[in-house]
Amino acid sequence: MSWIDIPDGSPFGPDNLPLGVFRHGDEEPRVGAAIGDQIIDLAPVASAQMLDGAQLFAQPSLNAFLALGRPAWRATRDWLLDLVRNSADRDTVEPHLIPRSAVSMQLPFEVADYVDFYASEQHATNLGRLFRPDSEPLLPNWKHLPVGYHGRAGTIVASGTDIVRPSGQRKAPDASAPTYGPSRRLDIEVELGYVVGTPSTLGKPVSVDEFEDHVYGVVIVNDWSARDLQAWEYVPLGPFLGKSFATSVSPWVVSLDALAASAVPLGVQDPPVLPYLRGRHLTNYDITFEVRLNGHLVSSPPYRDIYWSPAQMLAHLTVNGASVRTGDLYASGTVSGAGKDQRGSFIELTWGGREPLVLDGEEHGFLEDGDEVTISAWASRPDGSRLGLGEVTGRIIPTQPT
Amino acid sequence: MSWIDIPDGSPFGPDNLPLGVFRHGDEEPRVGAAIGDQIIDLAPVASAQMLDGAQLFAQPSLNAFLALGRPAWRATRDWLLDLVRNSADRDTVEPHLIPRSAVSMQLPFEVADYVDFYASEQHATNLGRLFRPDSEPLLPNWKHLPVGYHGRAGTIVASGTDIVRPSGQRKAPDASAPTYGPSRRLDIEVELGYVVGTPSTLGKPVSVDEFEDHVYGVVIVNDWSARDLQAWEYVPLGPFLGKSFATSVSPWVVSLDALAASAVPLGVQDPPVLPYLRGRHLTNYDITFEVRLNGHLVSSPPYRDIYWSPAQMLAHLTVNGASVRTGDLYASGTVSGAGKDQRGSFIELTWGGREPLVLDGEEHGFLEDGDEVTISAWASRPDGSRLGLGEVTGRIIPTQPT
Repeated sequence: MSWIDIPDGSPFGPDNLPLGVFRHGDEEPRVGAAIGDQIIDLAPVASAQMLDGAQLFAQPSLNAFLALGRPAWRATRDWLLDLVRNSADRDTVEPHLIPRSAVSMQLPFEVADYVDFYASEQHATNLGRLFRPDSEPLLPNWKHLPVGYHGRAGTIVASGTDIVRPSGQRKAPDASAPTYGPSRRLDIEVELGYVVGTPSTLGKPVSVDEFEDHVYGVVIVNDWSARDLQAWEYVPLGPFLGKSFATSVSPWVVSLDALAASAVPLGVQDPPVLPYLRGRHLTNYDITFEVRLNGHLVSSPPYRDIYWSPAQMLAHLTVNGASVRTGDLYASGTVSGAGKDQRGSFIELTWGGREPLVLDGEEHGFLEDGDEVTISAWASRPDGSRLGLGEVTGRIIPTQPT
Repeated sequence: MSWIDIPDGSPFGPDNLPLGVFRHGDEEPRVGAAIGDQIIDLAPVASAQMLDGAQLFAQPSLNAFLALGRPAWRATRDWLLDLVRNSADRDTVEPHLIPRSAVSMQLPFEVADYVDFYASEQHATNLGRLFRPDSEPLLPNWKHLPVGYHGRAGTIVASGTDIVRPSGQRKAPDASAPTYGPSRRLDIEVELGYVVGTPSTLGKPVSVDEFEDHVYGVVIVNDWSARDLQAWEYVPLGPFLGKSFATSVSPWVVSLDALAASAVPLGVQDPPVLPYLRGRHLTNYDITFEVRLNGHLVSSPPYRDIYWSPAQMLAHLTVNGASVRTGDLYASGTVSGAGKDQRGSFIELTWGGREPLVLDGEEHGFLEDGDEVTISAWASRPDGSRLGLGEVTGRIIPTQPT
């Protein structure tokens, strides 16, 4: 399929070609496409072929490319597919292949607004049981709309960025007043993030059928969470400091075009949703995550059965006339399956800390300083092949002295 | 005090000198300072005086200036004060005075992250009574931390932008399912917004004593709200579509230095707050808003008694290590006083719509298409003089056909 050598089992086969921003030595960060263990340095290749817009790849973020819109995204993908398939391009491309091991990956795009949904029924049910044990786990609105809220865009960080343990207020259930200190219930959230390219107009909703006109692709999101801070602060205006200290995203943005063969029909929604959330071809993606804590596989959350489709999330997000911008990121919320080993957060995996994991014979509850969490993801296709989304990783470091 | 003619009662006297971004005819938008009925076009004046950084004023937003930090803000203010006081500068400045009536004002800065607090005790109590009539109006966390959440930065608009009535889901208390349609309970929120200039470092909290190192100044904020959408969606993750369709800000950013004489000591906080929220000189500002609906004065919310000081809001926002960026905006939340004519939203002024206002003999509940809301604000000083914050205005237009 390609004249480029691609190791068996690589997430980045010749039909994936995700885009990211790399830094190579002292050179300026710029856009590359991943293939196998290598990166195609796109700016010089596009320049050599005298492509319009070659300079878009010389920039330190994908935003200018993302703003071009779907026809340009398609044309770029076709060009990339040709480059790696057609051995006539070998002489042009080969000088601009850089080993992935030789670069450091950057945040792939400047994040405009960040919205976090709550679209996994299993996760919402688990969290309802843990946070509100005395009431129905799923709230009355949950099956009528994709519940979501705004997160902090300025603290979205590149994979590999160390995560400083957050401090803040928490209150024990039997205490009369809160105390201050480093979080004792530091957690992850395994999510899929959708990256908006084409902006919309203020005052005009985006319909479910316009999803692919606006969204370029996906990244893996780890929405680090401090459960003790969150539990004390979140009523009535929602999570704030329990989430805002850091959110990590994977470096390679996989296009919806590359994911197309992994689309699966959305499950039945009962009760039926309002018309603005209905569409002819609502789909999800058959993606499975793998969560590793210090190298141990601890969970494999499945995305395919998530309750709300990404087109519905976008339609809901804009139904009030709110506009989206290039660089907007909206994430699915934590992905959890029905199995104990399919839960997308440690609060679920350890059931509120009461059922610690056992790794190498040692009990492990919430995250400790020095812990490293790596989330990878793969999309499955009907022909049995797989397409990788790469991984997002981060290590916990102690609270900084103030 | 100035060789420039300033009409009596102008919000923009010779010691205010707020900065904003104006558009004059077909020329590029750029930075100006308001004085009386005029604008000083700063880029050519700074160039004529061969000031370093004169080009910062030729930009279409204040962000580059805001990023300079407090010493540069102070130096700029001193320069401006000299320009308008010293008649020797008249020949340089006068050719670059533009009538305010001849320009259109733009959004003064590119908003990075937007956080909305909930810092008025009277407002939080009123909303608690209206949204949760069967429980204590003030929740247990309210006096321990400034409750806040993230809003949508991408839909913050310049004063004068028409506000499209948002559509969405709402559910009547006795209905079994939600319905879709244009909001019937469209509202305002009168707020003071703090504009961050100097960024902070991820992982390092900003202490209460560092407030003035990071915050440049203030704007008036109208956080338009759809109460019916909000009531149905906001549990458990907080307000989302009920707020995200639009937030209007006033065009002139008034510096903390200009406001300094209006600082008042923060009221007593009982119970005592945790140490990270304590400071030697916690202050508020003696500012009074005026809310006009279609020209009628309907409310005068007082800011001075708000429970949480802006330095505490910033310290709380960053206590978990979250960083702030140039262009961050954090707002106080709705400002309401104890009097009926001091409430900062129509849901409070009409007590949930049950006690309509009477204007020109007609009843008026929530906002109707065509309604125009203008919020102005004034800071009072011990010598009896006043400093204006200008105004923010917006008119409701019907939901757009989809």
